[in-house]
Amino acid sequence: MNVPSLPSVSIIGSGLIGQAWAVVFARAGCVTTLWDGNPQAAQQAVTLIEQQMQTLARYGLVDDVVGAMAHIRVADSLEAAVAQSDYVQENLPEVLDIKLDIFARLDAAAPPHAIVASSTSGIPATAFTEDLAGRARCLVAHPVNPPSLIPVVELSGAPWTSEQTLVRTRAIMEAVKQKPVTVLQEIDGFILNRLQGALLREAFRLVEQGYVSVEDLDTTVSHGLGLRWSFMGPFETIDLNAPGGIRDYAQRYGPLYQELAKTQVDTEPWSNALIDRVTTARRADLPEDKLAARRAWRDQRLMALAAHKLQQLNKTEVPDAD
Amino acid sequence: MNVPSLPSVSIIGSGLIGQAWAVVFARAGCVTTLWDGNPQAAQQAVTLIEQQMQTLARYGLVDDVVGAMAHIRVADSLEAAVAQSDYVQENLPEVLDIKLDIFARLDAAAPPHAIVASSTSGIPATAFTEDLAGRARCLVAHPVNPPSLIPVVELSGAPWTSEQTLVRTRAIMEAVKQKPVTVLQEIDGFILNRLQGALLREAFRLVEQGYVSVEDLDTTVSHGLGLRWSFMGPFETIDLNAPGGIRDYAQRYGPLYQELAKTQVDTEPWSNALIDRVTTARRADLPEDKLAARRAWRDQRLMALAAHKLQQLNKTEVPDAD
Repeated sequence: MNVPSLPSVSIIGSGLIGQAWAVVFARAGCVTTLWDGNPQAAQQAVTLIEQQMQTLARYGLVDDVVGAMAHIRVADSLEAAVAQSDYVQENLPEVLDIKLDIFARLDAAAPPHAIVASSTSGIPATAFTEDLAGRARCLVAHPVNPPSLIPVVELSGAPWTSEQTLVRTRAIMEAVKQKPVTVLQEIDGFILNRLQGALLREAFRLVEQGYVSVEDLDTTVSHGLGLRWSFMGPFETIDLNAPGGIRDYAQRYGPLYQELAKTQVDTEPWSNALIDRVTTARRADLPEDKLAARRAWRDQRLMALAAHKLQQLNKTEVPDAD
Repeated sequence: MNVPSLPSVSIIGSGLIGQAWAVVFARAGCVTTLWDGNPQAAQQAVTLIEQQMQTLARYGLVDDVVGAMAHIRVADSLEAAVAQSDYVQENLPEVLDIKLDIFARLDAAAPPHAIVASSTSGIPATAFTEDLAGRARCLVAHPVNPPSLIPVVELSGAPWTSEQTLVRTRAIMEAVKQKPVTVLQEIDGFILNRLQGALLREAFRLVEQGYVSVEDLDTTVSHGLGLRWSFMGPFETIDLNAPGGIRDYAQRYGPLYQELAKTQVDTEPWSNALIDRVTTARRADLPEDKLAARRAWRDQRLMALAAHKLQQLNKTEVPDAD
């Protein structure tokens, strides 16, 4: 029952998320076993994982592709995939019946000490683990896509998930260089999407009410608000933005933000007219047939940013700031 | 009345914001004239501006310190400061009477074609320009501190600010490499602080209700949500996060975000107990006597990020993404 510093890992489901998880675990040095209901898909995934690693290596985000790939295996059966596992990461479609079925199979097959985690973003662990004998070792470990580039992982247990499961999963994620966040009680949207939702709602509201264009709203974040948030959270940001720290900030600006909040309370659905308007603005900037190319650009930018952050972290000397 | 591609600029008030504005305009090649009610402060500011430029030069964010400094002048009087000006940027304290007084003086002294802008974050242009003969050329141009590192500038006119003033100010900001955003109707908090406020409120709420620790909430942003937002806005982010673009995204996730929004409507002030709790968590991570050093670190990170973004922008070839 020791926490292995480098666990043996099983990846259940070898689609995009499963592949990215395989990159994360294998590049960290974990023996990583893939299983997919479609055996051909799992074999194909190995090729795609290697291609992803080669791309990441060009940005310095994988040191040794051959060494990392040597940690990857494909299992013929789910039982074989998890037989030697310390940690199981499930990545099947977001359908409750599928989660119920696969978690029953995984709980039956995985060794007693293994943790069994789901990548689901939308289904709470409560909904698919309640009746399992091993429910205490089950939880959600929700990545942001792709986890190979965006390290945060939200850990959300059911009420019956043991404290030890959460603590061990956190340690495993840290060991493979991810950034775990513990969701202390189950809540829809976990933490990240709740924060995103709050900002998006204000963004849609400001456009709907005619205060700003879609393009300028994006500029406000991409050349302003988002810069600090790419290396500091919102609390640290405001802690540094008042002479006396966060208490001082709250005293200075709390009343302003409270006044703003009073105008940020509507809960209407985004109207069709609003979605039309935002869509029209986006398609004027980026035609639909350029979406795929822009996604490739985004992934390149994410890789370059990850490399930049790594370089900043590894810096022993920084230029004087005067 | 042509838009000069490089305007002659006056900086009124030579504190931190005025100094950073001087860096922005002088490094872009604008003749930049400082004035401060305290002449010694203006002279001292020149020294501080040069130090800032030297630091920025080490990150590749100023090409030629000597050349840039050669564009900076100090005026003995407000009238002399603005006599040859195309664009005036005012940076005095956030007090309505001070804004009323200085705008009356600036409007009387500046050439008829000059634009007169305030850096205020909290006072709408309506409140201090209504009675001016030249009110059509007055507006707020709100920077994020420091504008030398964070390029977004929110342009917010009063109802009587001319369209031409807004268009010319946008062109000037683009000419000096800032990123202008036009606020189409006056609104408290402009755009950036309204977006920040919406996210902060959810952040405080999640901590208050026991869903996440202060530290983990910050991690969720600094290692997750904030990464894409450092180079794409929230609309572009979701546009690329569904196969069919933003309309597809809104159809898939709009109902989820609407459900979340129903639990994001309280408008209570942040309680003392809550602020105590967040303060305790922050001070455990960063003692009060380390705040200044951490601010210097933040500024170094902002400089490194600005250099990184510039490098990405200048890239003619990018590695294949496969």
